[in-house]
Amino acid sequence: MAEDNIIYIGKKPAMNYVLAVVTQFNSAGKDVTIKARGKSISRAVDVAEITRNRFLKDAAVKDIRISTEMIKEEDGSTSNVSSIEIVLGK
Amino acid sequence: MAEDNIIYIGKKPAMNYVLAVVTQFNSAGKDVTIKARGKSISRAVDVAEITRNRFLKDAAVKDIRISTEMIKEEDGSTSNVSSIEIVLGK
Repeated sequence: MAEDNIIYIGKKPAMNYVLAVVTQFNSAGKDVTIKARGKSISRAVDVAEITRNRFLKDAAVKDIRISTEMIKEEDGSTSNVSSIEIVLGK
Repeated sequence: MAEDNIIYIGKKPAMNYVLAVVTQFNSAGKDVTIKARGKSISRAVDVAEITRNRFLKDAAVKDIRISTEMIKEEDGSTSNVSSIEIVLGK
């Protein structure tokens, strides 16, 4: 299942996530999906690029998908937030 | 030339760029490329998603590319910045 290999990008420094992606990639030996929402999307692209350029030179971006997710706020209203999925593989 | 149809995303509100993309798309009648670097990448995804979901429902994301650009700082040093290109078309 691809679901096993997802790294969610939050607000920590990019390098934290790069290490997670590299570890996951090397241990599972299959595709890793990097996911982020909202302002973390920029960091997700940084993570993919740093991973590919510096640590896993044989990895390639296999797919990039963008979408919109509906978020339920605490007051019951909803708002839309963009999201990205970047699939790294060999 | 695809080069004629590029919208560069900066720090203004996303809706400013959405209007530019819609205008460009309708007047040129061909693919529009949305480009951004660094922290503006998140906004580029917002612009693509808002355009597609609200204004140009017949438009699709035809391609998404990410890359790393080397930026020359004022002091002569260089730093890397991630960039994204999102191609919207019919």
